[in-house]
Amino acid sequence: MKVYLLELSPWARLFVVTASLILVLQSRPVVSYEPTWASLDSRPLPSWYDEAKIGIFIHWGIFSVPSFKSEWFWHFWHDPTSSVAKFMRDNYKPDFTYGDFAKDFTAEFFNPDQWAELFEDAGARYIVLTSKHHEGYTNWPSKYSFGWGSMDVGPKRDLVGELRNATLRRKNLKFGLYHSMYEWYNPLYLADKKTEFKSDEFVNFKTMPELYELVNKYQPEVIYSDGDWEANDTYWRSKEFLAWLYDESPVKDSVVVNDRWGHLDRGKHGGTFTYDDRFDPGVLMKHKWVNAMTLDSQSWGYRRNAPLREYLTVENLLQLLVRTVSCGGNLLVNVGPPSHGYITPIYEERLRQMGAWLKVNGEGIYGSRPWTFQNDTLTPGVWYTTKPSSEHAARGRTVYAFIYTWPENGRLTLAGPKMSVDHSGVSLVGYSGEKFHFKPKEGLRGVDIFFPAIPVNKLPNLWLWGLKLTGVEN
Amino acid sequence: MKVYLLELSPWARLFVVTASLILVLQSRPVVSYEPTWASLDSRPLPSWYDEAKIGIFIHWGIFSVPSFKSEWFWHFWHDPTSSVAKFMRDNYKPDFTYGDFAKDFTAEFFNPDQWAELFEDAGARYIVLTSKHHEGYTNWPSKYSFGWGSMDVGPKRDLVGELRNATLRRKNLKFGLYHSMYEWYNPLYLADKKTEFKSDEFVNFKTMPELYELVNKYQPEVIYSDGDWEANDTYWRSKEFLAWLYDESPVKDSVVVNDRWGHLDRGKHGGTFTYDDRFDPGVLMKHKWVNAMTLDSQSWGYRRNAPLREYLTVENLLQLLVRTVSCGGNLLVNVGPPSHGYITPIYEERLRQMGAWLKVNGEGIYGSRPWTFQNDTLTPGVWYTTKPSSEHAARGRTVYAFIYTWPENGRLTLAGPKMSVDHSGVSLVGYSGEKFHFKPKEGLRGVDIFFPAIPVNKLPNLWLWGLKLTGVEN
Amino acid sequence: MKVYLLELSPWARLFVVTASLILVLQSRPVVSYEPTWASLDSRPLPSWYDEAKIGIFIHWGIFSVPSFKSEWFWHFWHDPTSSVAKFMRDNYKPDFTYGDFAKDFTAEFFNPDQWAELFEDAGARYIVLTSKHHEGYTNWPSKYSFGWGSMDVGPKRDLVGELRNATLRRKNLKFGLYHSMYEWYNPLYLADKKTEFKSDEFVNFKTMPELYELVNKYQPEVIYSDGDWEANDTYWRSKEFLAWLYDESPVKDSVVVNDRWGHLDRGKHGGTFTYDDRFDPGVLMKHKWVNAMTLDSQSWGYRRNAPLREYLTVENLLQLLVRTVSCGGNLLVNVGPPSHGYITPIYEERLRQMGAWLKVNGEGIYGSRPWTFQNDTLTPGVWYTTKPSSEHAARGRTVYAFIYTWPENGRLTLAGPKMSVDHSGVSLVGYSGEKFHFKPKEGLRGVDIFFPAIPVNKLPNLWLWGLKLTGVEN
Amino acid sequence: MKVYLLELSPWARLFVVTASLILVLQSRPVVSYEPTWASLDSRPLPSWYDEAKIGIFIHWGIFSVPSFKSEWFWHFWHDPTSSVAKFMRDNYKPDFTYGDFAKDFTAEFFNPDQWAELFEDAGARYIVLTSKHHEGYTNWPSKYSFGWGSMDVGPKRDLVGELRNATLRRKNLKFGLYHSMYEWYNPLYLADKKTEFKSDEFVNFKTMPELYELVNKYQPEVIYSDGDWEANDTYWRSKEFLAWLYDESPVKDSVVVNDRWGHLDRGKHGGTFTYDDRFDPGVLMKHKWVNAMTLDSQSWGYRRNAPLREYLTVENLLQLLVRTVSCGGNLLVNVGPPSHGYITPIYEERLRQMGAWLKVNGEGIYGSRPWTFQNDTLTPGVWYTTKPSSEHAARGRTVYAFIYTWPENGRLTLAGPKMSVDHSGVSLVGYSGEKFHFKPKEGLRGVDIFFPAIPVNKLPNLWLWGLKLTGVEN
Repeated sequence: MKVYLLELSPWARLFVVTASLILVLQSRPVVSYEPTWASLDSRPLPSWYDEAKIGIFIHWGIFSVPSFKSEWFWHFWHDPTSSVAKFMRDNYKPDFTYGDFAKDFTAEFFNPDQWAELFEDAGARYIVLTSKHHEGYTNWPSKYSFGWGSMDVGPKRDLVGELRNATLRRKNLKFGLYHSMYEWYNPLYLADKKTEFKSDEFVNFKTMPELYELVNKYQPEVIYSDGDWEANDTYWRSKEFLAWLYDESPVKDSVVVNDRWGHLDRGKHGGTFTYDDRFDPGVLMKHKWVNAMTLDSQSWGYRRNAPLREYLTVENLLQLLVRTVSCGGNLLVNVGPPSHGYITPIYEERLRQMGAWLKVNGEGIYGSRPWTFQNDTLTPGVWYTTKPSSEHAARGRTVYAFIYTWPENGRLTLAGPKMSVDHSGVSLVGYSGEKFHFKPKEGLRGVDIFFPAIPVNKLPNLWLWGLKLTGVEN
Repeated sequence: MKVYLLELSPWARLFVVTASLILVLQSRPVVSYEPTWASLDSRPLPSWYDEAKIGIFIHWGIFSVPSFKSEWFWHFWHDPTSSVAKFMRDNYKPDFTYGDFAKDFTAEFFNPDQWAELFEDAGARYIVLTSKHHEGYTNWPSKYSFGWGSMDVGPKRDLVGELRNATLRRKNLKFGLYHSMYEWYNPLYLADKKTEFKSDEFVNFKTMPELYELVNKYQPEVIYSDGDWEANDTYWRSKEFLAWLYDESPVKDSVVVNDRWGHLDRGKHGGTFTYDDRFDPGVLMKHKWVNAMTLDSQSWGYRRNAPLREYLTVENLLQLLVRTVSCGGNLLVNVGPPSHGYITPIYEERLRQMGAWLKVNGEGIYGSRPWTFQNDTLTPGVWYTTKPSSEHAARGRTVYAFIYTWPENGRLTLAGPKMSVDHSGVSLVGYSGEKFHFKPKEGLRGVDIFFPAIPVNKLPNLWLWGLKLTGVEN
Repeated sequence: MKVYLLELSPWARLFVVTASLILVLQSRPVVSYEPTWASLDSRPLPSWYDEAKIGIFIHWGIFSVPSFKSEWFWHFWHDPTSSVAKFMRDNYKPDFTYGDFAKDFTAEFFNPDQWAELFEDAGARYIVLTSKHHEGYTNWPSKYSFGWGSMDVGPKRDLVGELRNATLRRKNLKFGLYHSMYEWYNPLYLADKKTEFKSDEFVNFKTMPELYELVNKYQPEVIYSDGDWEANDTYWRSKEFLAWLYDESPVKDSVVVNDRWGHLDRGKHGGTFTYDDRFDPGVLMKHKWVNAMTLDSQSWGYRRNAPLREYLTVENLLQLLVRTVSCGGNLLVNVGPPSHGYITPIYEERLRQMGAWLKVNGEGIYGSRPWTFQNDTLTPGVWYTTKPSSEHAARGRTVYAFIYTWPENGRLTLAGPKMSVDHSGVSLVGYSGEKFHFKPKEGLRGVDIFFPAIPVNKLPNLWLWGLKLTGVEN
Repeated sequence: MKVYLLELSPWARLFVVTASLILVLQSRPVVSYEPTWASLDSRPLPSWYDEAKIGIFIHWGIFSVPSFKSEWFWHFWHDPTSSVAKFMRDNYKPDFTYGDFAKDFTAEFFNPDQWAELFEDAGARYIVLTSKHHEGYTNWPSKYSFGWGSMDVGPKRDLVGELRNATLRRKNLKFGLYHSMYEWYNPLYLADKKTEFKSDEFVNFKTMPELYELVNKYQPEVIYSDGDWEANDTYWRSKEFLAWLYDESPVKDSVVVNDRWGHLDRGKHGGTFTYDDRFDPGVLMKHKWVNAMTLDSQSWGYRRNAPLREYLTVENLLQLLVRTVSCGGNLLVNVGPPSHGYITPIYEERLRQMGAWLKVNGEGIYGSRPWTFQNDTLTPGVWYTTKPSSEHAARGRTVYAFIYTWPENGRLTLAGPKMSVDHSGVSLVGYSGEKFHFKPKEGLRGVDIFFPAIPVNKLPNLWLWGLKLTGVEN
């Protein structure tokens, strides 16, 4: 079949494709979603996702072997003036190929249950693993990537499957997958690109079959698509995939996807919106979005030579967390494991620090909603969340104000909340001591909060604090 | 497209395929060959092939890295009681994969011009290189084998292309390719096999596109197909390929194919017939055939630990050569280069010995035809060829009798030739001395030939001699 | 010479050795130290050492390649039931040798200036690098370890020399070396051991020549000897070495050695005493000592699979630091770099945390002396230091009390200091706010100190605080 | 001990050494040989050696891993314009060390019994294995080469011991060892060299102890010393070693050594004389000598990319053999096994060809003596041997004339032998047919021999023939 198609005249191709589509549509059961954005975008986002707030992103692949510069190692290498090209010249034989690294993706310390325990302890409610990055190497035994996958060379393990199973053994963790549409150097892709995506062998024979396979085999509840930007969603068959995903796939009711389905779709179509990497708008977004960010500020993949100063501090991380949640986003915190599969202690430390903080402050994060104000207009470094309406008391709503720093002289002036002495209250989340004094501008927005000089041993945590304001008027 | 096709009902699939075929046929130019065996088998074999008689077969691939047991290494490994499984247990880490070998396919000594010079000097008129063996690794940068090919991992060279170009720089050497239809462990293939070849993803997306790509890119004049035996030629699309090859391909006029196009085709359909490996019938075959055989009697791929006694002696080789040619076959002599690409001296020696013999005896080999008799019915170890009719003198034809051994007492009795004292003659090919005395049974078949006691320093060669009989009656 | 010695009768050997000694002694210049402990132990410890308090220990070698279990990897491996033996069975070929690891000791990210900067920033005043561990591999190009050193296999760099030069480029850092006397599997050593150390080839031809070479070539100001325990100091020629070191070596005036010079010497002879690894007596020691301890609680060498919980927290580290200094010891903090040479972030973090703490609290650490009391007898978790007499004011001495935790209710009762309302004072080191109220038991030892409720943003640091008590009566 | 010695004044050193020597000499049993050449050279060569005629030399070591250019690979590498330096630049990372090759000296196919069987079948009567070449790597577990030997890195086997045991299991094979005195890049050696060999650490602590160890452990009956040429025999302690070897060692009665014991000794002192490598004088030598030569004409160590034309043909080999034996030498035929330990077929073929020839012609080789003439003065390509006097018949001696080529016209004129029609005879060794006619110049030297035209199938062998002349006058 294929061979002839390639040789058909454009007119003939059109005929065949149209005929096929007609048949396909006829042979379908009654469906809810059509492969149009109008239809697909009408699907409500499954509610678990907004409540979860925090996910763990994992970038793991052949790039974890050189573990130098970033997961875009292969790409940078093509520039002879790059640090990667220099690294290769200095440390490898002249004709070393990227594929030659694969053998050393050993994963001998990969313990998926240990990973899942850590991610749950970090306070995450879901994880997203790179099933395949732009390099094209599949972390599972794909039918469509013979010789360039984790059972063929390197680990000899189904990394996706093992982590999925371990994830599902945890109480509160959902499993998701990252998937790169394009593969930088896959010749099928390059050929399609050369035709300005008039030909479509790559999408038909490689990347889409793999995506269907992934969904059918591992039932991911998050699909983080990527690598879409060089072609549009018609080339990628994205809408058709999503219609199938929403209507017929094993995860049709629970799955959440992102917005990277083709050039120009980002921030416009799909499930949760990613915009750019490390998207951090600082204002409320109309549509559910996600801030996918990295603990290593410079790289998604592991870097053996990353200095401490390029890792986020716990303060950086928590500020991002509250700022993101305040503005309606989810935080997707990236971890880059080494090729041996043991997550390094600095990552573990940040994750467990975040987890400890969330054990205290989670009440203002999980299941929270953006409030009228996101950050305080008067005092910088204050970000608000609120609880869903159903959870509020008669006398007004509960608002959480997260403060980056302890107020210099113990007095915090907020411009946002409208409170009253009688019906409102202020307390430090996790603090067992007395409530804080406060002085509202009666009848108006604005309040002064007076912090007692709590000694360090009485504080619920040492970085970034949550104030619980009750009885706040809407 | 693909996705939907897979999900279509059988009826719908049939429709689409039929529609496509109709379109294809309409869009074709006027064609000579139909994709039916009746049509394809009607094509005459290009004449160069039968005249060439001798080709070099080259088995080179990832199996050349372990270079143990045979090119079926990967397959044997699956049997835990095999010598290969033991070899792996003894010498590699437990989870070593076959793909892990690929990095060490270094080919640093591969000099294609050196190879081509050697093959020409061996007296071969064409070569056949494994473009892809059952392991699936491609020795060229295939569009369809991303990550599992010679530019991706290992040599970082286009082995097929380099050898092709070097071959074409020689005067008398044609270039051919071996291609395995199936790939033992390609999951697409295994999936098709599981459906008893009702599904056809592998053939459509992988093996056939590659074969078309090979032909278009490298214009091989021999295609030695293999690995066909688990499915029939309908699954493989073989007839469609051959129709295209004979009608439209860049080698349509000169290409010679073999008979391995599907289960049951061997010895029935195609160009030259291979029957089994090392086919050596000892009788005249009706159809042009080829004896593909190995200098290492046990393996097509290089074996580091092959003992001398398992290599053919030059006597073995030359006996096979004359026996094969006598019976109408071509001899395809296999060489297994190491992963570093330098052909080992024992191979070089056998090839150059054959070349030296052919420099003397080639007149009875190249362009020869089978004679009435293939071997002598009375004296064992005597095999005949003759020259095309056009080359014979008025008084009868020229027949070559190749004798394995020097006659014990200097007298050789042949039952086949009908000669006469007046019109016939007997000489030793390459010997500058006198003609031999002979005594025909006048009017009947049969002749006694009397060998002079030629001292060793006067002999044209030391192993296997050719007698030229002239004026032989038909 | 050697050959004959080996064959001499014991009597003859004695003669030769004695003659040699006589000659040696005669050919010496006037010397201060004799190779006897009485003489050697009479040498005063160079004063810089006690003032420095904090050093960095670095364990780096071939064990950093497997980086599993500990730097005793090779030793554990010999026990087939060990985790190391299992690790080898699971991940390496059956006959893998320890020497086979050496090739992968690549050190490509080893930047000695980066290391030195980090160590200085950590507040250390000297470093001690493993020049050679029990494995015998030399981190410098030794004359006596051909083929098993860092220029021969692996890094192709003089690791000792490069780090030494970088160290000396820092203002406040001295350079020291660890050296293992024995080498587990050096056959010369094993042969000597078999004779119960009556033969002495190993010490004469290998380990002692190397130690002299190290001193002459790199002038280390600390020599941390180790691996001595299976033989006595006569076998090791330790006293002779020390006499030379103290009298004639290029570091004779400044060098500080430890006490591992032979079985039974530990804690008895030498410079600073180590007793056991991680020695932490909790009481004042009569003799200068050192607590050599590890940030990875389980290993001196790098472990790729060390979980966060097995690294010391910064609180653990600082508690050890003040406890050690209070009791008269130096703290030698061990870092285990990976084979690639980039110190991992968790190590960097602990070191920089210690450095930040010392920038605030260093006044009570560097150059301090043990006080009358080491820890408070009433309140646990309080450790004292004092300043040298010369630095005290007329009205009494300055004592530092380091407290592990902030007092539960803001009141700290100390049993040790004798203070008076008039002449004494209490302040928090690094805190710019008011002095603390206190209530001494007038005329007696004992004082209550009242901590103000300092808000977290005013604290000089968040873990372990130093109180400066002035006007403390002796 | 050592340390002091190094620090002694020259006078004191002299004293100690002298004292030691005196003691040594006193402690000796009654001895036959003194460490002087006069004494040592007076020892008769054990008779087995001259009778054996043919030995196998084996060059195997780390150089067998790159197996490029020659066993001097490491040395050539130092020249940046060399082919080796280019090979390294093209195929290895920039800082690859020679030691990094050692891991890949795997020897997985090394079967010592297979080797021994092959060497015996080749007609050799002894073998000589490189125990240690100039690289310094020891093929046995030396006490003095920790980390740089075959148990430490690479094979994890005692190659010397295994081959010795296999050799001794054969009927007719003696075991010998090659040993390089110097080690190109051993820093101890380089240090001694720098002092113009006034210091002697290397010889005392490394190379001589190893040589004693080898003899005691493996009892080699041949010691082929090498690498002596940069220093004299006083530095090397050669005479002392030989006195011990001849007087006290376990092989004192049977061992044969060569002449490479110090600068200027070659061709002057020792057992059998080697002069240069591949020494082939073409005239009778007064002293027993050996022609150590290689089947690969360019290299002693294995070369992966050696072309056939650089291997000796069997004719080359046999000509060298008879020429060498005629002139009183032994032939030591070198084999270079690959790092995996399986001897390649081209080597096996040459060896078995030589063995087959010797099965026929051995009577004129083994135990033979040089004759009055070595080669014939009239006809080139004729070389003589004779049998020991005891074996001759009353009427004259037996002389063997080996002829390179079959005489052009069947007539061979020899100038050397004095024969008579009555008492003499001429036959072709191994030929069962009639004796040859001959026509002596009666009373004078000189004879014409008439070769019958023996057909090729009656010849005892196809390359280089032996004539047995009986009744030759002295």
